[in-house]
Amino acid sequence: MTTIDLASLNAMTPEEFATSLFGVFENAPWIAESAARVRPFATVAALHAALMESARGAPAEARLAFLRGHPELAGKIARAGAMTAESVAEQGSLGLNRLSDAEFERFEGLNAAYREKFGFPFIVCVRRHTRDSILSRFARRLENDVATEMDAALEEIGLISRLRLVAAVTGPGIPVTTGRLSTHVLDTVRGRPAAGIPVSLHEIGASGSAEIVATVTNRDGRTDAPLIVGEPLRIGTYELRFRVGEHFRGSTADPPFLDMVPLRFSVSEPEAHYHVPLLVSPWAYSTYRGS
Amino acid sequence: MTTIDLASLNAMTPEEFATSLFGVFENAPWIAESAARVRPFATVAALHAALMESARGAPAEARLAFLRGHPELAGKIARAGAMTAESVAEQGSLGLNRLSDAEFERFEGLNAAYREKFGFPFIVCVRRHTRDSILSRFARRLENDVATEMDAALEEIGLISRLRLVAAVTGPGIPVTTGRLSTHVLDTVRGRPAAGIPVSLHEIGASGSAEIVATVTNRDGRTDAPLIVGEPLRIGTYELRFRVGEHFRGSTADPPFLDMVPLRFSVSEPEAHYHVPLLVSPWAYSTYRGS
Amino acid sequence: MTTIDLASLNAMTPEEFATSLFGVFENAPWIAESAARVRPFATVAALHAALMESARGAPAEARLAFLRGHPELAGKIARAGAMTAESVAEQGSLGLNRLSDAEFERFEGLNAAYREKFGFPFIVCVRRHTRDSILSRFARRLENDVATEMDAALEEIGLISRLRLVAAVTGPGIPVTTGRLSTHVLDTVRGRPAAGIPVSLHEIGASGSAEIVATVTNRDGRTDAPLIVGEPLRIGTYELRFRVGEHFRGSTADPPFLDMVPLRFSVSEPEAHYHVPLLVSPWAYSTYRGS
Amino acid sequence: MTTIDLASLNAMTPEEFATSLFGVFENAPWIAESAARVRPFATVAALHAALMESARGAPAEARLAFLRGHPELAGKIARAGAMTAESVAEQGSLGLNRLSDAEFERFEGLNAAYREKFGFPFIVCVRRHTRDSILSRFARRLENDVATEMDAALEEIGLISRLRLVAAVTGPGIPVTTGRLSTHVLDTVRGRPAAGIPVSLHEIGASGSAEIVATVTNRDGRTDAPLIVGEPLRIGTYELRFRVGEHFRGSTADPPFLDMVPLRFSVSEPEAHYHVPLLVSPWAYSTYRGS
Repeated sequence: MTTIDLASLNAMTPEEFATSLFGVFENAPWIAESAARVRPFATVAALHAALMESARGAPAEARLAFLRGHPELAGKIARAGAMTAESVAEQGSLGLNRLSDAEFERFEGLNAAYREKFGFPFIVCVRRHTRDSILSRFARRLENDVATEMDAALEEIGLISRLRLVAAVTGPGIPVTTGRLSTHVLDTVRGRPAAGIPVSLHEIGASGSAEIVATVTNRDGRTDAPLIVGEPLRIGTYELRFRVGEHFRGSTADPPFLDMVPLRFSVSEPEAHYHVPLLVSPWAYSTYRGS
Repeated sequence: MTTIDLASLNAMTPEEFATSLFGVFENAPWIAESAARVRPFATVAALHAALMESARGAPAEARLAFLRGHPELAGKIARAGAMTAESVAEQGSLGLNRLSDAEFERFEGLNAAYREKFGFPFIVCVRRHTRDSILSRFARRLENDVATEMDAALEEIGLISRLRLVAAVTGPGIPVTTGRLSTHVLDTVRGRPAAGIPVSLHEIGASGSAEIVATVTNRDGRTDAPLIVGEPLRIGTYELRFRVGEHFRGSTADPPFLDMVPLRFSVSEPEAHYHVPLLVSPWAYSTYRGS
Repeated sequence: MTTIDLASLNAMTPEEFATSLFGVFENAPWIAESAARVRPFATVAALHAALMESARGAPAEARLAFLRGHPELAGKIARAGAMTAESVAEQGSLGLNRLSDAEFERFEGLNAAYREKFGFPFIVCVRRHTRDSILSRFARRLENDVATEMDAALEEIGLISRLRLVAAVTGPGIPVTTGRLSTHVLDTVRGRPAAGIPVSLHEIGASGSAEIVATVTNRDGRTDAPLIVGEPLRIGTYELRFRVGEHFRGSTADPPFLDMVPLRFSVSEPEAHYHVPLLVSPWAYSTYRGS
Repeated sequence: MTTIDLASLNAMTPEEFATSLFGVFENAPWIAESAARVRPFATVAALHAALMESARGAPAEARLAFLRGHPELAGKIARAGAMTAESVAEQGSLGLNRLSDAEFERFEGLNAAYREKFGFPFIVCVRRHTRDSILSRFARRLENDVATEMDAALEEIGLISRLRLVAAVTGPGIPVTTGRLSTHVLDTVRGRPAAGIPVSLHEIGASGSAEIVATVTNRDGRTDAPLIVGEPLRIGTYELRFRVGEHFRGSTADPPFLDMVPLRFSVSEPEAHYHVPLLVSPWAYSTYRGS
C-alpha cells in the first residue's frame, strides 16, 4: 500500500475509495464503501472516525463475520527455541516469537478457551503491547460477556486500523499514534546535567528481560534521541539502568553506595510522552513521571 | 570457647590469660602472652588494641610465620553443584560455597597467584564480605607489594580477632562489630507511613542474586525488625524491592506506573547503620542513605 | 489545683469528687456530680469521656447555661500597642495579645456578630491554636446554625477540659494532649546528617511572623530537643529556616544557589507528630511530612 | 545610538569606526581607534574581544584616566523617599533608587572609602546585579589592592560594553548577554503537570522584598513565558512562591499541610539558564536547579 492523499480520496468514486483503503480493515470492503457516502473528510482523523462508525453501525451478523475474518494471533507466535537471530534483532525485545514453553502453553490454553467462548479469534493491536501485557489482557478479556467482548475487539480494530491509515494516507489532521520515552540525568551535587552516564532501557517480562537500547547521556544529560519515538510505546514494564558509579568516583565510598541505579516503571498509554528523569547524588536519588 | 569476664582476664596468670584467649588468634599464643604484660585493661576495646599492638610489633619473621599459620580460604569454598540444602538455608545468600564454575576457576587462579607472590595464604574477615566483594578485594590486593600486603593481612586479622574477642569476653567497652540495615516507606500522597507493603532484601552478585529476607511494613511503615542487625553488614551490593502497586490501586494507571520499586545500593561499612527509605507516590519516588 | 490520683477520685464521696474536679469545667459542678455515679474509672481517659457524656447528655437549657457561663475570649485579647515586653517573651509567638489594629477590629466585629447570633460566648481551646487559626475558625463557625454550633462549642470544651484534667489527675490511661514537631537535616552529597546547621522555627501570621525557637543541628543532624514538645501544637502556619550556605561553602556558586532554605507548612493536628526533614545538596532539596 | 551592521563597521575609516562605537566606552575613543587596526572582525564577539584587548593593553596612566572618566554610581542612587511612582513601576524590583536610609548611609560610606583608596569611581555592570549584590561586591572589592581592583574594574567595563555593543551592532557571532529563569510544577499524585497554580517571583533583599512577576501555570505546568528572559539575570536572591493549597483541596488536611510553597535561591550567573521546578504532593515537595 503506497501513501495516498486525503484530497484524492475525497475525489474518488466510492469503488476507487474502497480499493484504496483495502488494507486498512481485514476483508471488509463494505466498511469503506459505507463511509464513502459521507465524504468529503476535512482530516485524516475524521476519515478514521467515519470508517469506525461504519463498522460499529453494521448489523450484529456483519460485525461477527468481520471479527471472524481476522487471522489468529497464534500465527505470530512461536516457542523461544524456534526464534531466528534475525527476528531477535528485529524485535529488540521480548517478542511473541520468544515465548518460553510455559508461556506458550498458557497462550494455547487462552486461545482455545477464547475461541470456544466467543466464536471469533482474539484481536489485539499487537504494536501497542509487550508480550506480557498481551497475555494479561487475554486472560482478562476472557472474563467478558460476548457483547462487551465484541466492543473490546472493535476497539482494538480501531487502534489497528488507525495505525494502518496513518501509514497509508497523507493530509491534514493526522491522529497521534506514536508515543515517546525520554530521560534526563541531573547531578544534584554540581547542579548540572550529568554527561557521559551509560543508560540502557530494558523490557521486563515475567520470564525474563531484554535490552531495548543502550546509550550514553550527552552534555545536556539527555540522550541524543528519545529512547523510544516514532511508534506506539508498548504497554508493559520497563527498567532504565543508569551507571552513575564512575561519574561520582572519588566523592563516595568503596564500593560506591550507588553504582547502577535501576528505575522500573510501566507504560499504560502507548501514545503518551513518558519522561523518566534521574536526579542523583552519590547517596540519594529521585525520579518521577515528568512531561 | 565460653565467655569470660574482662576482670577475670585481668587477674589471671599470663599463662591462664593466653590459654583463655587461645581461639582469638590462629596458633599464636605469644600474642596474648606479650599483651598480658600490659594488663589491666579497662575495656574490651583496650584489650583488643593491646593484642593487635603485640602482633604488629613482632619481628618480621614472627609476623610472617603467624600469617602462614592461617588456614587457606579455599577450605570454605566449593562449587555451586556441591552445596547441600542445609548450607543454602544456613547462608541465605550468595555464600562462598555457591560459586559458579567460572567464579570457582577465578578463585583458584587468584589463590595460586597470591601464594606464589606472597608466600602466605589470603586472609580476609569473611563475615564482613559477600562473595563478590571477597573476589574483588582478592584481585586488588594481589596488586600490593609484600610489605603493604602484610599490613593488609594484619588489618584483616584485627577484624577477625575483634569479632572473636567480642564473642568470647564480657566487660565494659565492647567494640562495635555489628551494623544495621533498616528501611521505611512513606506515602507522600497521604503524608503517612505506608503499611502492608511487601519488602524483600536481595544480595546482588555478579552471577546471580539471592533473597536474604522478605517481610511486610508495619503501621509505622517500618519492618518489625531491622532487615539486618546483630552482625556485620557484608560489603557488597543489595537490592530492596517494594511492592507498592497494590497500595496505590485505584489512584493510578493500568498497569500502574510503579509496581515493584527496586532500590539498589552497596554497603561499604559493615559496622555502620544504613537506613534506606522509600518516599513514594503513584508517580514518583526518592531514596537516600539516611541515619 | 494540685494533682490528685485517679484511685483517690474513685474512692471519694460524690461531693468530694465534684470539688476535686472543680476547675475542669467552668461553673458547672453538676457535670462532675453526674459522672461520679458511674465510677470507678479504670483510666483518666474514661473519666474524661464520662464527664463529657454527662455534659452532652444534659437538657438543652442546662447546656446553654453552661456555655453562657464561659468567659469571653475578649478578655485575653489586646491591641499590639498594649503588649508588655514580658508577654512577648512569654509567648514567643503571635499571641492574641499582639493583634494589629485591623485584626482587633475584625475580632470585635466577629465577637459582636457571634453573641448576637448564638447568645453565648465564642469558646475555643486557645492552647491548640495560633492567632490566625482562631480568627479563621471564628469566621467559619459564625456560619453554623445554632444546634451545630452548640455541638462545636461542646467539642472545644472537651478539648479544654481534657487539657485541664491531664494537668490535674494522675493515673493510668492518660489521654494524649501533646504533639511534637521535629526536624532532621541530611546532606545528600556526603550521605550523612548535616551538623551545625542553624535552624529556626517561625509562626507565620497574616500580619507578621514571630520566631518561636532558634537552634543548631547536632551531629545526628537533629536538634537536641524537638522544636515543640510537651504541649499541643498550635493549629496554624509555620516556617522552618535552615541556613545551609556555610555548610556547603566551597562546593557551590557565589552567592550560593541555596543559602537560607525556608520550609513552610501548616499544622492541623495539635496532638500529632510532625517530622519535617530537609534533604539537601548545594543545588537541590526535598522535604515531606514524616513520622 | 542606532544599530549598525558589523560588515559596515569593517569597511569604515578608522575615524568613522570610532565614531560609530562612541557610546560603548565612556569618553575613550582611543580604544576603538586602536582596535580599528585589527579589522576585519568575523563576529561581534571578536570585535568586543579586540576592544577589550585594546583597553587592557593601554599604559597604566591611560587606563587610570579611562577609569576616572566613568561617572559615579552615586548618581543612580537615591533614598527610598525620593522615588517616583514611575521608577518603581519601571524597575519592578529593589532598585538602587529605593535604598533605605541605613543602606544609603552604608553606600555613602563605601563610596567615600573607595574613592579615597583607589582614586577612581566604583564601576560595576549594574544591569547584572540586584541592589544587595552591588552592596556586597562593593564591600568586598574595597579589600582589593590597587592592581587587582583596576583589573576588576576593567572586567566590569567588559561586561558593560558587551551589553552596549550587543544593543548597537548587528551581525554574526553575537555574544550571549541574556539569561533565563523558568519553572515547572509537577503534581506527583497524578503524575501530571499542575495547571492553574498561581506563581510569583520575588526579589529578596536585606531590607525588604519586591514582587517581580506574578502569573499562573498553564496546562503544561509551565508559565507561558519564562519568568525572566531577554536580559541578564540579576545576581541576587529570589523567591518563587507557589500557591498549591487550592490545587490539592479535598485530599489533604485543614489547613492544608502545604499551601504557599516558597523556593528561595540565588542567581550567580546572569547569562545562564536557571530552571527551578517544583515537584509536589499534598505532603512533600522537592526542587533543584535544572537545565
